[in-house]
Amino acid sequence: MTTVHVVNGPNLNLLGTRRPEVYGTTTAAQLEELCRAEADTLGLELDFRQSNHEGQLVDWMQEIGAEAAAGRTIGVVFNPGAYAHTSVALRDAIEGAGTPVVECHISNVHARESFRHHSHVSAVAAGVVVGFGVGGYRLAMRGLLGINQG
Amino acid sequence: MTTVHVVNGPNLNLLGTRRPEVYGTTTAAQLEELCRAEADTLGLELDFRQSNHEGQLVDWMQEIGAEAAAGRTIGVVFNPGAYAHTSVALRDAIEGAGTPVVECHISNVHARESFRHHSHVSAVAAGVVVGFGVGGYRLAMRGLLGINQG
Amino acid sequence: MTTVHVVNGPNLNLLGTRRPEVYGTTTAAQLEELCRAEADTLGLELDFRQSNHEGQLVDWMQEIGAEAAAGRTIGVVFNPGAYAHTSVALRDAIEGAGTPVVECHISNVHARESFRHHSHVSAVAAGVVVGFGVGGYRLAMRGLLGINQG
Amino acid sequence: MTTVHVVNGPNLNLLGTRRPEVYGTTTAAQLEELCRAEADTLGLELDFRQSNHEGQLVDWMQEIGAEAAAGRTIGVVFNPGAYAHTSVALRDAIEGAGTPVVECHISNVHARESFRHHSHVSAVAAGVVVGFGVGGYRLAMRGLLGINQG
Amino acid sequence: MTTVHVVNGPNLNLLGTRRPEVYGTTTAAQLEELCRAEADTLGLELDFRQSNHEGQLVDWMQEIGAEAAAGRTIGVVFNPGAYAHTSVALRDAIEGAGTPVVECHISNVHARESFRHHSHVSAVAAGVVVGFGVGGYRLAMRGLLGINQG
Amino acid sequence: MTTVHVVNGPNLNLLGTRRPEVYGTTTAAQLEELCRAEADTLGLELDFRQSNHEGQLVDWMQEIGAEAAAGRTIGVVFNPGAYAHTSVALRDAIEGAGTPVVECHISNVHARESFRHHSHVSAVAAGVVVGFGVGGYRLAMRGLLGINQG
Amino acid sequence: MTTVHVVNGPNLNLLGTRRPEVYGTTTAAQLEELCRAEADTLGLELDFRQSNHEGQLVDWMQEIGAEAAAGRTIGVVFNPGAYAHTSVALRDAIEGAGTPVVECHISNVHARESFRHHSHVSAVAAGVVVGFGVGGYRLAMRGLLGINQG
Amino acid sequence: MTTVHVVNGPNLNLLGTRRPEVYGTTTAAQLEELCRAEADTLGLELDFRQSNHEGQLVDWMQEIGAEAAAGRTIGVVFNPGAYAHTSVALRDAIEGAGTPVVECHISNVHARESFRHHSHVSAVAAGVVVGFGVGGYRLAMRGLLGINQG
Amino acid sequence: MTTVHVVNGPNLNLLGTRRPEVYGTTTAAQLEELCRAEADTLGLELDFRQSNHEGQLVDWMQEIGAEAAAGRTIGVVFNPGAYAHTSVALRDAIEGAGTPVVECHISNVHARESFRHHSHVSAVAAGVVVGFGVGGYRLAMRGLLGINQG
Amino acid sequence: MTTVHVVNGPNLNLLGTRRPEVYGTTTAAQLEELCRAEADTLGLELDFRQSNHEGQLVDWMQEIGAEAAAGRTIGVVFNPGAYAHTSVALRDAIEGAGTPVVECHISNVHARESFRHHSHVSAVAAGVVVGFGVGGYRLAMRGLLGINQG
Amino acid sequence: MTTVHVVNGPNLNLLGTRRPEVYGTTTAAQLEELCRAEADTLGLELDFRQSNHEGQLVDWMQEIGAEAAAGRTIGVVFNPGAYAHTSVALRDAIEGAGTPVVECHISNVHARESFRHHSHVSAVAAGVVVGFGVGGYRLAMRGLLGINQG
Amino acid sequence: MTTVHVVNGPNLNLLGTRRPEVYGTTTAAQLEELCRAEADTLGLELDFRQSNHEGQLVDWMQEIGAEAAAGRTIGVVFNPGAYAHTSVALRDAIEGAGTPVVECHISNVHARESFRHHSHVSAVAAGVVVGFGVGGYRLAMRGLLGINQG
Repeated sequence: MTTVHVVNGPNLNLLGTRRPEVYGTTTAAQLEELCRAEADTLGLELDFRQSNHEGQLVDWMQEIGAEAAAGRTIGVVFNPGAYAHTSVALRDAIEGAGTPVVECHISNVHARESFRHHSHVSAVAAGVVVGFGVGGYRLAMRGLLGINQG
Repeated sequence: MTTVHVVNGPNLNLLGTRRPEVYGTTTAAQLEELCRAEADTLGLELDFRQSNHEGQLVDWMQEIGAEAAAGRTIGVVFNPGAYAHTSVALRDAIEGAGTPVVECHISNVHARESFRHHSHVSAVAAGVVVGFGVGGYRLAMRGLLGINQG
Repeated sequence: MTTVHVVNGPNLNLLGTRRPEVYGTTTAAQLEELCRAEADTLGLELDFRQSNHEGQLVDWMQEIGAEAAAGRTIGVVFNPGAYAHTSVALRDAIEGAGTPVVECHISNVHARESFRHHSHVSAVAAGVVVGFGVGGYRLAMRGLLGINQG
Repeated sequence: MTTVHVVNGPNLNLLGTRRPEVYGTTTAAQLEELCRAEADTLGLELDFRQSNHEGQLVDWMQEIGAEAAAGRTIGVVFNPGAYAHTSVALRDAIEGAGTPVVECHISNVHARESFRHHSHVSAVAAGVVVGFGVGGYRLAMRGLLGINQG
Repeated sequence: MTTVHVVNGPNLNLLGTRRPEVYGTTTAAQLEELCRAEADTLGLELDFRQSNHEGQLVDWMQEIGAEAAAGRTIGVVFNPGAYAHTSVALRDAIEGAGTPVVECHISNVHARESFRHHSHVSAVAAGVVVGFGVGGYRLAMRGLLGINQG
Repeated sequence: MTTVHVVNGPNLNLLGTRRPEVYGTTTAAQLEELCRAEADTLGLELDFRQSNHEGQLVDWMQEIGAEAAAGRTIGVVFNPGAYAHTSVALRDAIEGAGTPVVECHISNVHARESFRHHSHVSAVAAGVVVGFGVGGYRLAMRGLLGINQG
Repeated sequence: MTTVHVVNGPNLNLLGTRRPEVYGTTTAAQLEELCRAEADTLGLELDFRQSNHEGQLVDWMQEIGAEAAAGRTIGVVFNPGAYAHTSVALRDAIEGAGTPVVECHISNVHARESFRHHSHVSAVAAGVVVGFGVGGYRLAMRGLLGINQG
Repeated sequence: MTTVHVVNGPNLNLLGTRRPEVYGTTTAAQLEELCRAEADTLGLELDFRQSNHEGQLVDWMQEIGAEAAAGRTIGVVFNPGAYAHTSVALRDAIEGAGTPVVECHISNVHARESFRHHSHVSAVAAGVVVGFGVGGYRLAMRGLLGINQG
Repeated sequence: MTTVHVVNGPNLNLLGTRRPEVYGTTTAAQLEELCRAEADTLGLELDFRQSNHEGQLVDWMQEIGAEAAAGRTIGVVFNPGAYAHTSVALRDAIEGAGTPVVECHISNVHARESFRHHSHVSAVAAGVVVGFGVGGYRLAMRGLLGINQG
Repeated sequence: MTTVHVVNGPNLNLLGTRRPEVYGTTTAAQLEELCRAEADTLGLELDFRQSNHEGQLVDWMQEIGAEAAAGRTIGVVFNPGAYAHTSVALRDAIEGAGTPVVECHISNVHARESFRHHSHVSAVAAGVVVGFGVGGYRLAMRGLLGINQG
Repeated sequence: MTTVHVVNGPNLNLLGTRRPEVYGTTTAAQLEELCRAEADTLGLELDFRQSNHEGQLVDWMQEIGAEAAAGRTIGVVFNPGAYAHTSVALRDAIEGAGTPVVECHISNVHARESFRHHSHVSAVAAGVVVGFGVGGYRLAMRGLLGINQG
Repeated sequence: MTTVHVVNGPNLNLLGTRRPEVYGTTTAAQLEELCRAEADTLGLELDFRQSNHEGQLVDWMQEIGAEAAAGRTIGVVFNPGAYAHTSVALRDAIEGAGTPVVECHISNVHARESFRHHSHVSAVAAGVVVGFGVGGYRLAMRGLLGINQG
């Protein structure tokens, strides 16, 4: 059975309590459940992680790249949070990971402050899903599966 | 039975033959079939249109807005093509339509020329789906349904 | 009897229903009446048109230019809507029309998003009236008459 | 009887002699007469002032704000001259004045040097009238009255 | 016998009367004659069109692309007029047309306003001819023939 | 006994009434009392001034510079208001005054319009205090005293 | 007894030895003592931390946010050091923390390299104190107390 | 006997004491003597003024313009100080004065901060003299005389 | 018999060997032959030169200007190579030469690096021919002749 | 015996496998060997480290600074990887380290995407070596030794 | 007897014939005479040169630097012409010459195209004289002498 | 025996005397000796040249390109001096030379004025060595040898 990785970046552990008017009221634990349910539906194992540390996220992308080399993953749904806008290191890690990474943002970043309009990650992403709330993770997982199925 | 509108902008009538290395080999007719199949699955009527004319697309957005006021649509999957980058008129039409519009791009515009990185439409879209090829239309339709289901 | 042309651009047919908090509640039909009443007061014939198509608006500016060459018009009150910000073709049509064109915006575009602060049309307009709601059309018509009276 | 204030900024005392090819040949005294006649027509008292001093103009905006609080004015027709392009202090004074201020420019500033295209005042103005020569003051006074009459 | 297409964009139907100090006094009809004479000289059929509508021009580029696929054209001499500066849709249509398109401007756009210095079309054109007046169409037709002859 | 100067720039005479949602409800007179109380606490004489005139503020900075040369002041708490964003003359006056000047803003200018993010004064200020409401003046006075005490 | 948190970002552990001509000669340990003394004076508990890791600082802001929810803190004096200029993740953590954060810089960042003039943190800070050396921490603590006391 | 006007802008009254490492040690009084001596040599009357007020400087430019109209001046040596970089009002006053104005800066503004590299005044000046210390006034006076002598 | 000058800038002596994938395989000698043949056809004398030195090219433009004053040339076909992007001296030389200069580039500079999109020369050229390979020289010579023939 | 430190930033642990067409096929372990051999040749001890964590790299720069203060190092060869483009914290750590740091990039960053052209580190580096593949580390070590030998 | 060097850059050999409406009708030979007369008046030897070659001008600045080291020159009046806007090499040569260089422009470059507003030379010039026509050379020579006399 | 070429650009003939605080005290002759010694060590012939002329440097790059085609060189160590920042012609010459060119700067250009941060040459260089003083030439020569040895 292959795995789908869902990796969340900074401040996403506080989902549901931090700025619910922007990010909604679903908690991080509920998001994990939502993702697990979708993974079950799609016949995939779920690996769900979150970190506030850019370096940790780079480490994980490398780890998942190794999983990919071993054929054990269909790729990553990645919500880089604020690091989307500032991290070239994550861009490089994704570009080198050798597995599709779908970028996912809960809020519509294009309707917010201008510094949120550019993401270093998008150019190396396999696809981008923006603005669907936590429902976007489901779309991203399906999109990832579609990419794997050609 | 409610309708989902799929509206394609300039040059998307040539899908499958124009620059297949960028946009893939699925033709516009096949895309319509793919969308119809997905609409069936989701229990929706499909309305599928394409125009190279910015004004025509504005007219259609207004028409669909009227449909929305009558409760006959779940919204629009809109691939504005090149007008994404140049049309404020379409942005205004969408902002005024009173129904969710999901922006969808076949190619990963963020990995292409810099003038394709900005879309006037994104800020008023209900969600954005980028880079999944024609499979993105399916994701966008599901996303639209999810928005309607709250 | 000479004519004053009032030409409205994209989305202005939906006046009164589209974003009334920005554009007010006067409908397009009421605006036409308001303009006709003012034209009567000023002893002018009214020609009132609207289109969502940039090309149609260019066609009309050329037609009105021909009217002007025949001495049958005092000029145009033109609300280019969103095309103000994106259309060089309209700028060129106005520059070549040989009759004064007064640019008119219902809302105060300078108090809104920065992409609404620049108008390609303004530099070739005979005058610009911004932010007076639909009352601005009356001012623009009077201004046009004043220009004709030297 | 309520008052309409016409306030002119720097160099407008030299109207008629300074660069007549840009600003026309009407003198400042004639402009005052033109405004007084229009005020009479509209049943308003005219208060006409001019200063080259940014600070004086700020003082006056505050004074007029006090008049407004006492219900003795319909607002201001303000030609900020060159301070339009450089004065945030005037913007703040207008924003705080509590009475509508219509910005008025004699020449079409959008057809001149690029540093004249931006006005700090416009975003807080009740309306903007540009390019109608001294006739613009009349339009601005009428526009102000219209704003007061809702 | 193969065809050379000459396609003119917005406001070029008014050639000879609109701003002759910039565009010269040759009329659109005379330009068509000039082009027909040159086509005769070069042994080509002439197809001459003009539209003020961006969408129409996109439609035509697609039509001519179909002609090219059938081996019935040597390509297009295209004067996009103002759409050169604002239309990505036309750029995309040309890039996808599969036949050489030579961009041609009557006036020297580089000696005019800065917004005329950039053309979206140039990067996908087979060649660019600027500033030779209507004589540039002749050069462009010859250039097109040269491209076809390798 | 040495003096602390508190100098307020344009529109700060209207404190408490102008835009209280931004600047609070403390009046200018109450601010003077608040500053006098703090000066008493710190064993300092208070000199409190306000002007809407850039030139007047420059004059005063020069006067206070002369006071400083005579050892009669610990420096200035200066709220330049809008002149922060536009006045190089004030920057130069402060740079030449030979006494520490602490820049103080009541509102958080960094959370407001982008033209309020830059202050010409900051680079030559001894310190900057932003966003604490009128309480910032107390902090600034203490900061000034600290600078004097090394 | 409630707590005041003082959080220092990268390189501030080397205070007193790293570039004393910019940051002064007070060591990090002495700064902690200075803060503790001030906290004592103000009747507050001090929590003093430093990290070179952006992710760690985000973690801490979240922790302190939890403390705030429990009513155990008056907020944070935060010197983000270089992360002020590069971290959107910290901005987001602060915006979500639900407790006032006062930004504090030892040196006058506005008098240094231009890349130090902008801080991602300032727009979400409760106040900003810049350029008072280590004395700024005392002002920031008082400012924080003032904010809590309304 | 005709007059040469020397007009100094903000902070130039403090010449000799303010930042002598930049502006030198000649005092304002000595500068006036230096100018008077040169005027004597050139057979001219000297009028020497200084103000920190932008509005006052505009007033004076208008006054001198009136002198020029009466044939009583050869023009102005104008050191706008910091207003060079921020005042469009002064630019307009000079453009309208009808007499040559030579811009003069004591220090080499091009070797200082970038905000000192642009002067609004230069484009309308008859000549510009930069960086010769107070000796530049002598050159400017001679240059002015040369302009008058054709 | 009059002369047509063909002047090539830096690195064009290596035509045919330097980067043939960009500039083609025609050598500089072959280009001279191609130009001579076209000159013969057009009844013109050919003067063909190349230099890597900006100063030499300026010298030559001046020389040819003298030829023009003597009525011995129809003008210049000038491929400035890289100096197009960096030389104002050549722009000035051309502007002063008093004979038409047609700018010619072998490759489509608009489809290459962004620093090749701007040419200092274009604004003063009589016409511009871009992207036709060495065939562009022929077009440029014909264009030049057309300019001479009005 | 003194030490030379070689510190590698994010993703450089994957050297040889990640994007070998850009970074070559030498593995991180082989690079360490290559560096050790060179250190031996130069009579130096090698300390070789890598981290994906910005904070860790800052910690290490501080540690090495302490080593330098004790005279136990000749400095650092530092490949900051992607943090070159985004980390001011590393810049500050290097500036404060008190030992020469040579910046080294394997690929020619100036021939890649524009966001790789600027490095925050370069301005405080003792030297920069770019584009020599892993051979650049050898050059950097020699350069570091040269700096120590004056 | 010491020498004053007058060095003219590109196209200044054509003075009097090239664009006299911009540069006047004085020829280069007359300018040399004018300079010689002024040098005589000032008791100086004149060395007058002109070149269109940037490298030649660098060579000469170096030569004159050697003259300066030998105490045989008071410095250079340098009109860099178009190289002012493009040559860093000349800036460096002047910065290293060890003798004052006064930059002189005949026309008012600040009233012309924006690319003429910046000069690489100004920041290292001893003084700048702009816009006085050929009379500016006289002012520059006097200014140079003044600099030498302290 | 193969040759290594060392080519120096403008002002580098004055090494050791021009601005020694920036470029050091080693003279150009000493640099040649230093390079010759290193060439000897590496078993290479040295060719050492310097010119202040951009065109001469282009000529030389072409000559060396011919040497390379004949297999007589390992490439060039090139210090373009100021032409790094302004010459596209040199970039093109290097790109076409067919032999590796290592760019070498004596000073750390990234720690100096911003106009020195960009080099047109870097993108086409085989490697870049910056900031090691004259020692950088040795590193560059070794780097060049390494490139040749694969």
